[in-house]
Amino acid sequence: MYPNLLMKRASLTPDRVALRFNEQEWTFARLAEEAIEFAEKLHTKGMEKGMRIAILASSNPKLIVVMHACMQLGCELVLLNERLSEEELNYQLADSAPDYLVVDDYNKRSLSFSNKYSFDEIENVGRSFFEVEKDWTKERTITIMYTSGTTGRPKGVRQSLENHVMNATGSALNLGVHPNDCWLCTMPLFHISGFSILMRSVYYGMTINLHTKFDAEAAIKEILSGTVTRMSAVAVMLERMLTVLESKGLSFPNTFQSVIVGGGPVPLNYLERAIERNIPVLQTYGMTETASQTTTLASEDALRKLGSAGKPLFFADVRIDGNEEIGEICIKGPHVTKGYVGAAESTNPLVDGWLHTGDMGYMDEEGYLFVVDRRSDLIISGGENIYPAEVEQALVKHPAVKEAGVTGKLDDKWGRVPVAFVVLKGETSEEELRTFMKKQLAPYKQPVDYYFVDQLPRNGSNKLLRRELFNYIKNT
Amino acid sequence: MYPNLLMKRASLTPDRVALRFNEQEWTFARLAEEAIEFAEKLHTKGMEKGMRIAILASSNPKLIVVMHACMQLGCELVLLNERLSEEELNYQLADSAPDYLVVDDYNKRSLSFSNKYSFDEIENVGRSFFEVEKDWTKERTITIMYTSGTTGRPKGVRQSLENHVMNATGSALNLGVHPNDCWLCTMPLFHISGFSILMRSVYYGMTINLHTKFDAEAAIKEILSGTVTRMSAVAVMLERMLTVLESKGLSFPNTFQSVIVGGGPVPLNYLERAIERNIPVLQTYGMTETASQTTTLASEDALRKLGSAGKPLFFADVRIDGNEEIGEICIKGPHVTKGYVGAAESTNPLVDGWLHTGDMGYMDEEGYLFVVDRRSDLIISGGENIYPAEVEQALVKHPAVKEAGVTGKLDDKWGRVPVAFVVLKGETSEEELRTFMKKQLAPYKQPVDYYFVDQLPRNGSNKLLRRELFNYIKNT
Repeated sequence: MYPNLLMKRASLTPDRVALRFNEQEWTFARLAEEAIEFAEKLHTKGMEKGMRIAILASSNPKLIVVMHACMQLGCELVLLNERLSEEELNYQLADSAPDYLVVDDYNKRSLSFSNKYSFDEIENVGRSFFEVEKDWTKERTITIMYTSGTTGRPKGVRQSLENHVMNATGSALNLGVHPNDCWLCTMPLFHISGFSILMRSVYYGMTINLHTKFDAEAAIKEILSGTVTRMSAVAVMLERMLTVLESKGLSFPNTFQSVIVGGGPVPLNYLERAIERNIPVLQTYGMTETASQTTTLASEDALRKLGSAGKPLFFADVRIDGNEEIGEICIKGPHVTKGYVGAAESTNPLVDGWLHTGDMGYMDEEGYLFVVDRRSDLIISGGENIYPAEVEQALVKHPAVKEAGVTGKLDDKWGRVPVAFVVLKGETSEEELRTFMKKQLAPYKQPVDYYFVDQLPRNGSNKLLRRELFNYIKNT
Repeated sequence: MYPNLLMKRASLTPDRVALRFNEQEWTFARLAEEAIEFAEKLHTKGMEKGMRIAILASSNPKLIVVMHACMQLGCELVLLNERLSEEELNYQLADSAPDYLVVDDYNKRSLSFSNKYSFDEIENVGRSFFEVEKDWTKERTITIMYTSGTTGRPKGVRQSLENHVMNATGSALNLGVHPNDCWLCTMPLFHISGFSILMRSVYYGMTINLHTKFDAEAAIKEILSGTVTRMSAVAVMLERMLTVLESKGLSFPNTFQSVIVGGGPVPLNYLERAIERNIPVLQTYGMTETASQTTTLASEDALRKLGSAGKPLFFADVRIDGNEEIGEICIKGPHVTKGYVGAAESTNPLVDGWLHTGDMGYMDEEGYLFVVDRRSDLIISGGENIYPAEVEQALVKHPAVKEAGVTGKLDDKWGRVPVAFVVLKGETSEEELRTFMKKQLAPYKQPVDYYFVDQLPRNGSNKLLRRELFNYIKNT
């Protein structure tokens, strides 16, 4: 058993600030009080212990209260990604079969699910008492999140209390815990990158500064003001902050501790520019199935091991499958999901106790993990492996290139060949890029086509969706 | 399963300093290497996984290596208190029935145990390989320590890996973890107050500065030099440091984080003087059966809740038994021992899942624990309860009193009456003290006898042994 996270935290440090949003502030005591109040209203509407509740909402303080309310009631949360299409959402609702759906605003979507309430409808009913559990079982499912799913239908991943707690413990032992820490949360709360910040907050007694969504200017303003010490990001967010800082000649203050950058490899070029701007970037390797981080670079290694995602955190174990230097990354530990819901329920995510991620990487002689690529994105061209990330990294080295996405297209001769999608920030031409790239990469890795686009397809947490790049090809 | 603590730590941060002793320094990599080397020598001598090894030695780096070596081999450690009499040690050896006894120096004691080796005898043999376990079970017994035992024979308490890890986790969430933390260890390593620092060191990746024993001048010198940030102590050690600081007009530097003071209530007078000397004192309530801390005051409450031992740490739960405000302190959590070895093996330390400590205390309306006294020390006089600690606190308020110990003596009329043992630091008389005390306490709490002594009886961790005070009475 573990203690009821929010109640224990509210009893330990009731007056510490749990949440800041614009000019508003919630202490842990107030957050606990509002969570119980909302839970009693959910209870009035029929929700109770053991039920499954799907939530579709934007990141704001009310969503945090609603999430905690559902946890207090003893319900499982299905966290829906509000950037999905209605078809995708309806699939997840059908697959996870929640007892209720709770949404912040009906008008955003028309979903084919009958047992639903809006936040306002619940807010307006009376409270009905329920017994708050003092302790929670470790095995309890806290959240269900559908993975981005690179092949086939997305799967609903169960994240248990133990998954979240052990993940947060491992992260604490790596990053340290300071009573004055404050985490800037610009990641969506329905995604593990955002939700894990919420878990750390109640577990550590740490303040969250919440932004509804990522805005580079707003994030930088917050960081420069000295109010926050940590932040989670993906590579593209880092790049956007770098561009702003560079244009203004600004750097991060020394009080800021680290940006934890996950969601795929970070181009070395970004890491080098980050050093110039005094941004302590710690690469991490995490995913929905591991309730966030599995490896994260330690601060002391940030410069020496540039490009690495670090070592496995205290309770985590990683091995590389196969006989070659680069192989599939496999993960073990108490932070790894025990399984799925819905159609995939009978699928065991583990093979001999190890999660086979489908991601490719290697460990250097000192045990640092380098994530090379997502296996499903691998382009096999004439028997040679081409890692899209490598080609993308080469492209963004060009001063006119802001972002790049690379994928494979079918080719009669080679099987697949790489194709590049480029967002520009300066003047260049296809010809100039081809010349530039020839200096960077072997001939078989050269993109055969270049598409100049305004933006790249990204998921709710700004991770590049390479398989979506195909849609561009189909449409040309 | 948890990872093998030392091996995981050495793989995560091999170059961080694990241990400093005088001018010597051990990184985690070196400590792991020396532990394995010594373990292979123990193995040569016949020790192997599943065995029980008793250790009798002074606090020094070699003892740390030996302790880690035994853990690496997969053995249980019986940690013997070197300040005990030979009779007491022989009892503990007979009761715990270890497979081997390992001592730093034969000449110190003549123990009736045949299967024994000195550190040197082991050092001088060759190494024989054994398979180092990558993971350890949570239930595994790491250490066995005999409790000071206020009544009857001392009991050998099993401390499991989970006990130690969860205790260290709860402490980390309260105190915070900083990569630059360094804990000054002047407590004996065979006692939970010292051994728990060793566990935190490998778990957090934190440096220990080791002193063979507590010396107020040496501790203050170390703290003033800025090399350490934390320290564990008991009340009398705090008093000795205060006296030195006051005589020299010195205060602790701001870089120092906290002195964790356990082993019984701390007189308010000491706490107030500590504030004057910029010593951040955090009272804690812990014991052998809970692998160290159960409650510890948080830094932010240090001044507001002076005299309290704080709130139950994240994974710990505390309740007060009985119907009165002051009752027996009961403890629950993953840090609580699962049981004893030897004669007490069949005794379940828990009643309905709660450890009944025999200690008396209360919780205020905000949930802060105040430890009033050890129940077994309670003096019941004419039906009234007298808590020795309360009388002692009153005594040390007098400017000439350095330390005080109070216990009960048999009395025909009242059952028991309090008797005071006083160590002076200035000029005073029995008459003056009596007059002083009448202003402080109710008539029935007044000591009937005063004994002026040079020192008070204390155990290996400097905790006052009130039952030993009786010996003074017998001898007068």
